[in-house]
Amino acid sequence: MRMVDLIQKKRDGYAHTKEEIRFIIDGYTKDDIPDYQVSAWSMAVYFNDMNDDERAWLTEAIVNSGETIDLSAIEGVKVDKHSTGGVGDTTTLILAPLVASIGVPVAKMSGRGLGHTGGTIDKLESLKGFSVEITNDEFINLVNTNKVAVIGQTDNLTPADKKLYGLRDVTGTVNSIPLIASSIMSKKLAAGADAIVLDVKTGAGAFMKKLDQSKELAEAMVKIGNNLGRNTTAVISDMNQPLGFMIGNALEVKEAIDTLKGEGPDDLTELCYTLGSHMAVLAKKAETIEEARQMLKDAVESGAALEQFKLFIRSQGGDAEVVDHPEQLPTAKNVAEVTADQDGFVSEIIADEIGTAAMLLGAGRATKDSVIDLAVGIELHKKIGDHVQAGEVLASLHVNDAEVEPVIQKVKAAYTLTDNEVKAPQLIYDVIR
Amino acid sequence: MRMVDLIQKKRDGYAHTKEEIRFIIDGYTKDDIPDYQVSAWSMAVYFNDMNDDERAWLTEAIVNSGETIDLSAIEGVKVDKHSTGGVGDTTTLILAPLVASIGVPVAKMSGRGLGHTGGTIDKLESLKGFSVEITNDEFINLVNTNKVAVIGQTDNLTPADKKLYGLRDVTGTVNSIPLIASSIMSKKLAAGADAIVLDVKTGAGAFMKKLDQSKELAEAMVKIGNNLGRNTTAVISDMNQPLGFMIGNALEVKEAIDTLKGEGPDDLTELCYTLGSHMAVLAKKAETIEEARQMLKDAVESGAALEQFKLFIRSQGGDAEVVDHPEQLPTAKNVAEVTADQDGFVSEIIADEIGTAAMLLGAGRATKDSVIDLAVGIELHKKIGDHVQAGEVLASLHVNDAEVEPVIQKVKAAYTLTDNEVKAPQLIYDVIR
Repeated sequence: MRMVDLIQKKRDGYAHTKEEIRFIIDGYTKDDIPDYQVSAWSMAVYFNDMNDDERAWLTEAIVNSGETIDLSAIEGVKVDKHSTGGVGDTTTLILAPLVASIGVPVAKMSGRGLGHTGGTIDKLESLKGFSVEITNDEFINLVNTNKVAVIGQTDNLTPADKKLYGLRDVTGTVNSIPLIASSIMSKKLAAGADAIVLDVKTGAGAFMKKLDQSKELAEAMVKIGNNLGRNTTAVISDMNQPLGFMIGNALEVKEAIDTLKGEGPDDLTELCYTLGSHMAVLAKKAETIEEARQMLKDAVESGAALEQFKLFIRSQGGDAEVVDHPEQLPTAKNVAEVTADQDGFVSEIIADEIGTAAMLLGAGRATKDSVIDLAVGIELHKKIGDHVQAGEVLASLHVNDAEVEPVIQKVKAAYTLTDNEVKAPQLIYDVIR
Repeated sequence: MRMVDLIQKKRDGYAHTKEEIRFIIDGYTKDDIPDYQVSAWSMAVYFNDMNDDERAWLTEAIVNSGETIDLSAIEGVKVDKHSTGGVGDTTTLILAPLVASIGVPVAKMSGRGLGHTGGTIDKLESLKGFSVEITNDEFINLVNTNKVAVIGQTDNLTPADKKLYGLRDVTGTVNSIPLIASSIMSKKLAAGADAIVLDVKTGAGAFMKKLDQSKELAEAMVKIGNNLGRNTTAVISDMNQPLGFMIGNALEVKEAIDTLKGEGPDDLTELCYTLGSHMAVLAKKAETIEEARQMLKDAVESGAALEQFKLFIRSQGGDAEVVDHPEQLPTAKNVAEVTADQDGFVSEIIADEIGTAAMLLGAGRATKDSVIDLAVGIELHKKIGDHVQAGEVLASLHVNDAEVEPVIQKVKAAYTLTDNEVKAPQLIYDVIR
């Protein structure tokens, strides 16, 4: 087999065989096939797409390019959850103890990542003593005992994905449904999930801005999962404004605690119930979505979800006191207020801009070596549909050392106010399975 | 400017500016832009094409990537001729002295090249003593004095084209009209031509097998030439069978001499008159094609063309005796005959197969270091439309050391005979200017 022939085949609109896709991914992982051939091939894929078989084979080949995690020692159906990203998305922090409290095993591998705020691990490290540096055996024991544990990401999963993504990023081939879908799904599969719930964001603050694109990506991922024997469900949810009120690490932990107590923001709570009930159904802990949702609500109301969170924190060395005393979380030295210049209804909050503002305060990581300030962030007081009066507070900034004035201006500019009444955006657009 | 943005621009179907194209070609020539970005970009060009402006700018940028030849010290309009390749194409050898004999200055830079038989230089080196190792000044003086000279190709022309072609060859992006057209035209422009006549081959033995593709390529090149201020004409000619009767180096020199005497094969003679008359018109030596053609015929009939050939050979150190005594050309030790197995009309001669057969005899170069046997080759006795009887000779092989039986089989297999009468194919399909 010669790579140049495979490039021409895809260029001319033909489908690859399983062996051809394996040849490409194996060869690329081992440096037998050079970047310049893979980039030309990726561009041909961009134009001529891949059929469902090719997408599944590509995902499988990427999974097999590195280590895979074996979770078979954990009892039950291990359901993983993935979000395509957004701003103020605290769902993992809430969902892990929430679904564990009704018996769904949550074996979560998580990273630090770049972005507006830290990854799930950074947020958990707002909890004094909490550690994800545990061995594989400890991890599996913890999930079997407590139904939930989080471990740091190993570097050896899906090396082909890392190489491919790095190349696509500089060759104009990021925005290809088969390449995006296989990239995301390969990581979930390599991490050992039996079943997967995907939270595909749509709207101005999401990677996919248009609903039809988001659906296309969701359908692609669900098909890949199902074709590779992992039950997969995708929920398409709104990212036309940040989710919940909090953007920041300790701030989001606080919001997660509130939500587990039943006192969280409506949109965040609703999204957690939706995603959680699909997780419970895939894990066979409930027959129907309605039944699952009721179980989750009961767990919140009875306090079982919050107890599960405490257990989870304690078992990984953290101080669970914080759950009852959230004031013990890292706090910023100052709070600055962003006020409205005029009366009106909030019609838009550009999530990217809010995210960037949080990063300017120090909540996120611009490069791999940046140090995150866990205490800082943004608390939104008004969301789309809310009425505000001139001088009223739109958002509070939790600030340590950053220069605050440009951040105030950035947050203010992210808000659009109009004279006419505005409806809050729909939260859940579709469920695909 | 960032290359990734330019890749995305072309991917999304937008046209580049002149500055963008210059940025890409300059950056690639200097190794500032890596192969993997240029291959992705080439694939995007393959899919989304380039408009006429972009094609001209690309050609210009490739010309400017290296040295250019200044022929301004030569009087008159310097017309270059280029063929897109084929088998048994002796036209350059004939056209150079032919058009020079009516006053068209021919300043030819030529290469050795890979292929079925050698390049023009190899063929000229069948003439004892002939040398293309002359200085630039000698070259220019010779053209001014004798109207014709040939010099070896310098290595410093169009380095961007060499890099780009090497990359396209292994990334499935050879077959793109804007990339092919700019590659060919950049070389002609860098070699200093004021005007260009293109012989674009079409048919089974050509790079472009279909007439509409050949026309598209011809139109692309003519537009590039004209947009860059060089009058350009393209003739689309048949390559459904080898041109003329001879395939080999000394054999083609012999055929060139015959043709300059007015005793050459009909198709080769006709093509030379057609290309030559367009060259004469572009060089302003004639007002009309008809007038030019008459001048060329007169030059052949009066012996002026043949005298010009002798002058050309002598002035570059060659022994012109050979023109009157072609038996002094290198001759192979043996002649083997390929005979027809049955009666019939020749309906097809696969030019590629004949070319490969000639190469097996030693007439061509498989790698840069191969040594060519100037004496060997193939002489066709029957062409499309001819009737043959079983046992009659289709072709003679001029053989030195090669194993002859497989070559006989190859040549025989290249011929198709049918019972029904067959018309000779049209030679000239179109002229584009």
